[in-house]
Amino acid sequence: MARRNAFYAQSGGVTAVINASAAGVIETARGHKDRIGKVYAGRNGIIGALTEDLIDTSRESARAIAALKHTPAGAFGSCRYKLKGLDESRAQFERLIEVFRAHDIGYFFYNGGNDSADTCLKVSQIAEKMGYPLIAVHVPKTVDNDLAVTDNCPGFGSVAKYVAVSMREAAFDVASMAKTSTKVFVLEVMGRHAGWITAAVGMAEDAATPIPLLLLFPEIAFDEAKFLAAVDDRVKRFGYCCVGVSEGLQNAEGKLMADAGTRDAFGHAQLGGVGPLIAALAKDRLGYKYHWAVADYLQRSARHIASKVDVQHAYAVGKAAVELAIAGHNAVMPAIERTSDKPYRWKIAVAPLTRVANVEKMLPRSFITADGFGITARARAYLAPLIRGEDFPPFKDGLPQYVRLKNVAVAKKLPGDFKV
Amino acid sequence: MARRNAFYAQSGGVTAVINASAAGVIETARGHKDRIGKVYAGRNGIIGALTEDLIDTSRESARAIAALKHTPAGAFGSCRYKLKGLDESRAQFERLIEVFRAHDIGYFFYNGGNDSADTCLKVSQIAEKMGYPLIAVHVPKTVDNDLAVTDNCPGFGSVAKYVAVSMREAAFDVASMAKTSTKVFVLEVMGRHAGWITAAVGMAEDAATPIPLLLLFPEIAFDEAKFLAAVDDRVKRFGYCCVGVSEGLQNAEGKLMADAGTRDAFGHAQLGGVGPLIAALAKDRLGYKYHWAVADYLQRSARHIASKVDVQHAYAVGKAAVELAIAGHNAVMPAIERTSDKPYRWKIAVAPLTRVANVEKMLPRSFITADGFGITARARAYLAPLIRGEDFPPFKDGLPQYVRLKNVAVAKKLPGDFKV
Repeated sequence: MARRNAFYAQSGGVTAVINASAAGVIETARGHKDRIGKVYAGRNGIIGALTEDLIDTSRESARAIAALKHTPAGAFGSCRYKLKGLDESRAQFERLIEVFRAHDIGYFFYNGGNDSADTCLKVSQIAEKMGYPLIAVHVPKTVDNDLAVTDNCPGFGSVAKYVAVSMREAAFDVASMAKTSTKVFVLEVMGRHAGWITAAVGMAEDAATPIPLLLLFPEIAFDEAKFLAAVDDRVKRFGYCCVGVSEGLQNAEGKLMADAGTRDAFGHAQLGGVGPLIAALAKDRLGYKYHWAVADYLQRSARHIASKVDVQHAYAVGKAAVELAIAGHNAVMPAIERTSDKPYRWKIAVAPLTRVANVEKMLPRSFITADGFGITARARAYLAPLIRGEDFPPFKDGLPQYVRLKNVAVAKKLPGDFKV
Repeated sequence: MARRNAFYAQSGGVTAVINASAAGVIETARGHKDRIGKVYAGRNGIIGALTEDLIDTSRESARAIAALKHTPAGAFGSCRYKLKGLDESRAQFERLIEVFRAHDIGYFFYNGGNDSADTCLKVSQIAEKMGYPLIAVHVPKTVDNDLAVTDNCPGFGSVAKYVAVSMREAAFDVASMAKTSTKVFVLEVMGRHAGWITAAVGMAEDAATPIPLLLLFPEIAFDEAKFLAAVDDRVKRFGYCCVGVSEGLQNAEGKLMADAGTRDAFGHAQLGGVGPLIAALAKDRLGYKYHWAVADYLQRSARHIASKVDVQHAYAVGKAAVELAIAGHNAVMPAIERTSDKPYRWKIAVAPLTRVANVEKMLPRSFITADGFGITARARAYLAPLIRGEDFPPFKDGLPQYVRLKNVAVAKKLPGDFKV
């Protein structure tokens, strides 16, 4: 088969390990020079393809690419730019193929979540329709952990570890001061619709390190009276209470408890602020002194406390994507298949994108305790392997050493601009 | 000299390394059994002494005490309980001496900040007045880094490292998404009056890793127009802007930008919320999408990313406190004296408490750039050694293993209760 170039783009919110997937793609492609020529990356994600703003990753040293394995966020830039249906966004899809054709791109690797899986599938469909030979492989990524088929999503394990470690540490702080100071501590975490990250906060405590901890899942409608009773009970019994709350907490009417009012390009509400709101409730209704933290981007960029298993997953799906593409698999996604909980064993499976695109995998109700405030043994069995192992980045002078690539642009071949 | 018992208490807000000071005190005392009998700790700080609620640290294994070196927060509990003047709080001071007498306590080690240094001094004065032989030594601790005489305060270096690492990581995240998403990211940090922690955020960036970063110090009155112009400039030039803001940011009238209205036992306002406020400004006035994080307790309890130098300092001041006490130094504090910036060299000096008590060491204006938004080379030279080195705690199953002590109570010897 002829040698063709590859295009790789990062999509949506970045993670602490998405660059490890990039390293997996690029290093594996470099090992198959007979089949893959250059790997071009989209500057700022798919927008880079639409505007023909491609980055030549062959200009990066092997060392720089290896350093992506320990560098958080998106090395080539990412974007929230949603391609709609084939008809609605026909101009965009055709432009993509035009750019691919101009640069002899035969492989499309798209590193993202649900929306991106859908885009990846549609790109493979339009290519086929247009008679353009293209292999499209989706590389899974999302801190929200809500992709179908795959056991878990690279990026999630590291956020899970961050929130569990952070809540454990904060709980030690609160416990030692509770006698005369803060009695209620609230940590707001990400996870718009699915409470995977909220569940991970529950890993902060275990039999050896019990913590009076309440979780407020986006799946469980907020019941103020029940919550306040639970807080009061914990404070009275243990002297303090820690609360992990999802940014997507909803009331009984299905309305977000905190909606900043702005929306992103996908139409998602910009969230943030439910943590302070919940904390103030404890003060107003129960009179307890409170503190709250909103980790926001800190949780998804905290490469310094990334999960080793997560880093391994992230690299593996990048590597597998290239291997699948070379083997001729089109419109697929390498998925993580768990073969054993204890010891944790996993392998890469192949998921057709038709089973992944736009499907949201919710936290099973069986992962949440009957009272709605905690996680079950099943949830623990699922989460435990994903936060396991440390993979500290190199430090210099006390700070992690993260790589910034040169990101050299590929010369444009097409006339004119394309407005995105 | 006769062998007498020691009393150790933690005071005020805890830190990621205050327990390392406790380990320094206890391990060193254990090495001087000819002079120091038992080390009793105050349960929940000085309140434990007032209520005769003492913890017998001799009941803890050597291994448990050693584990304090890598365990955040206050292992015996801490409190915000301010003793006032000798006359105003005479009953409390006399009660302390009464409890000390009942338990043959000849050494008082008080691990805290400015207020505690003052209390420690007053306890030594009342003991002398009452003819009770007591050696009182203050062990420095505060994330605020505002103690006089000592070069820096144990606890600060680790917060400094946390905020610098966190801002660096978040900046990578923001940079990669800025094209279509968040352009302004705000991280709110602690530091009521002195901008030491705010300055430490500045260490997130350096020549090798430039970041468009603005700092809002509590020492510099907030100038909205100037700030917005600076944000707009950074976004226009670099595509995004990161902001580190002190919880204690004030307006030109000296009023806190965000005052939740509640006050702690020291009369300090409970802060929190200036981060969201500043972020919203960027949106309302400039139209930029924003995100904000409030690290709150996460920053001061993050033992997982503690500074090795800070851990060493913390242990050293605990150890030195015992050695000074045994050598007969009364009403003093072991201080960290920097003898060289590069390479960083330090030793323990002895500071009389009269020079430490109630003095607040502010961030020098020379540490802040002329425009008020950054740190100078002098600040960097000062801060650099304090965040250096990693001292990761042991991990098991992906989580840091922090010790919880047995905290066995000492039998009471005094009749009746003492109301605090």
